[in-house]
Amino acid sequence: MAHEPSDALFAALADPTRRSILRAVAERGPVTATALSVELPISRQAVAKHLGLLRNAGLVAADRSGRETRFVVVGAPLEDLAAWAEQAGRRWDDRLARLGERLRDQPHLTRE
Amino acid sequence: MAHEPSDALFAALADPTRRSILRAVAERGPVTATALSVELPISRQAVAKHLGLLRNAGLVAADRSGRETRFVVVGAPLEDLAAWAEQAGRRWDDRLARLGERLRDQPHLTRE
Repeated sequence: MAHEPSDALFAALADPTRRSILRAVAERGPVTATALSVELPISRQAVAKHLGLLRNAGLVAADRSGRETRFVVVGAPLEDLAAWAEQAGRRWDDRLARLGERLRDQPHLTRE
Repeated sequence: MAHEPSDALFAALADPTRRSILRAVAERGPVTATALSVELPISRQAVAKHLGLLRNAGLVAADRSGRETRFVVVGAPLEDLAAWAEQAGRRWDDRLARLGERLRDQPHLTRE
């Protein structure tokens, strides 16, 4: 069963720059912070800071080899997030369906 | 096509109390802040504040009738979030598949 996404996961994704860095890592990884800063309109230092937050949230992993650190996306938390959001949406759909049934069964039901 | 989830959406979900309120609204809505505060271990005032943030993020809607305001979940942002997370995860899976192909095509490729 999927894990409920963590506070840190949502917080990490609540910034458009971090979402664009995550996207770039997904498309280019394994990739260094330096390589990412070349193609994004932000400094290497800022990229490294955002990568640290994404890493704390479990969304990227750092692979150290020699003097270089390359980043890759970790797929599982995004899958957990998709499952959580789908389930939350579905719970609401079920609720709507039940409400519809109740209204059909009790045509004189008022809104109070 | 689904919208990219907003910063406000992620920020609203980055709090476990807000996620539990969203869940309660999905299960019980249309529901008042007072009714929610009775079943959750938080004050009516705190519930109302969290509902305001969920509402700003587009996750719940307020239905005013007479003196009462009842809250319902809005399904679309959760569907957008599920689609976004799935796509972000899928992009990464595609990347893994391409990397696998490259490694198969170039058996002598080293990691630099």
